[in-house]
Amino acid sequence: MTNPTCAVVLIGNELLSGRTEDANMNHIARRMADIGVRFLECRVIPDDKDVIVATLRELKEKYTYVFTTGGIGPTHDDITVECVAHLFQVPVERNAATVKAFEAYYKERMNEGVLKMADFPKGAELIANSLSIAPGFRFENVYCMAGVPKIMRVMLEGIIPSLRKGSEVFSKSVDVYAGESVISAEFERVQKQFSDVEMGSYPFAFEGKGCTSLVLRSDNTASLQQAYQNVISFLGHLGVEYQ
Amino acid sequence: MTNPTCAVVLIGNELLSGRTEDANMNHIARRMADIGVRFLECRVIPDDKDVIVATLRELKEKYTYVFTTGGIGPTHDDITVECVAHLFQVPVERNAATVKAFEAYYKERMNEGVLKMADFPKGAELIANSLSIAPGFRFENVYCMAGVPKIMRVMLEGIIPSLRKGSEVFSKSVDVYAGESVISAEFERVQKQFSDVEMGSYPFAFEGKGCTSLVLRSDNTASLQQAYQNVISFLGHLGVEYQ
Repeated sequence: MTNPTCAVVLIGNELLSGRTEDANMNHIARRMADIGVRFLECRVIPDDKDVIVATLRELKEKYTYVFTTGGIGPTHDDITVECVAHLFQVPVERNAATVKAFEAYYKERMNEGVLKMADFPKGAELIANSLSIAPGFRFENVYCMAGVPKIMRVMLEGIIPSLRKGSEVFSKSVDVYAGESVISAEFERVQKQFSDVEMGSYPFAFEGKGCTSLVLRSDNTASLQQAYQNVISFLGHLGVEYQ
Repeated sequence: MTNPTCAVVLIGNELLSGRTEDANMNHIARRMADIGVRFLECRVIPDDKDVIVATLRELKEKYTYVFTTGGIGPTHDDITVECVAHLFQVPVERNAATVKAFEAYYKERMNEGVLKMADFPKGAELIANSLSIAPGFRFENVYCMAGVPKIMRVMLEGIIPSLRKGSEVFSKSVDVYAGESVISAEFERVQKQFSDVEMGSYPFAFEGKGCTSLVLRSDNTASLQQAYQNVISFLGHLGVEYQ
């Protein structure tokens, strides 16, 4: 597949201490699926300069796009800007237009903390933030967004129009009222027939009974439809309920 | 700090496609914080043998413990067992006691799919599953658990007594009714004074107003208390509301 790929890096001690539950990865995953960008890896890492720089250095080479969330606020633990500047070997530079926007917004509350959010790696392109002004930024294929979910979403929607789109991935699913082990042999047989369909099975409980959700995904609608028919057919032969 | 460390690997295409929202990382994070194991990295990766093997190979060297979730069921996309066997260069072996337990439980529903869940890397120690029988397993410092959150939690509680505990990490927090930029300079000043206290600030909204939660964490209760007093003191000087 020649679809573009991406990785996500969630930056923040609060995610690893358990204080905060991530609400960004799943949203990015769904939006990337919508536009045919294959999301292949996510990492959650602490506010640690060496770790952030090493992680971004590795991932920016492996994937078409790298998206980060977190670490772009005004406090001492917000170090994404200095990490990206270090990674790309450029200085950190204060952006005049952002300072101006802050002055108009913060007025007498303007201070060094606010100004820190006007600092970006030199040469970065800013990512607009219509909710709370302080922008995100892109440097080459690394896109740095806020960690606050509402702001992250606004930034992501600002980024998406500029991304290369992949072929759309279609999916079909069927809920089976039987455990995974009942369908696993037949399901695997179908998977082997359709290498261009990604087939997954996911257990769930219904009225205390083990059930299975089967999900088929492909950018080839003909294969997807055939594989789906094969699944429906073996479910009939097995005599299990499904819908 | 000599506390043990850990990484978590969430295995499953469904997490990266956005179909499923992870419910395991945060739980593991909180339980590791409880017992003083430092959770330093999480990765979310697809059901891809090369990726799983390479990820585990890297992480098992870097951390005291590696915990995986997902990929231990009966279907073709459940490949954690074969990946761990490949990583440690051991064969996959059917476990007789597990087969016996399955026979008693599944009776006439016994089949190859069920039996697959009795296969483990030779030499692995099994992790009990009181909910749905099929065990997880440990090989050296790699602990492989189910992806279904309820089952994962049971397995984790089974693992925890055998883990080396670190010194407990204590925390104090204060909610400030002002934005991060208002407190960032003073907050950083305190952080610089207390290198053994990890200080983070997290924005939240209250009645539409930007507020900030300050969190201090340390295994040194004296430092923690002093740093906290310093924070309370500067909040008073700044004249911001807090609680």
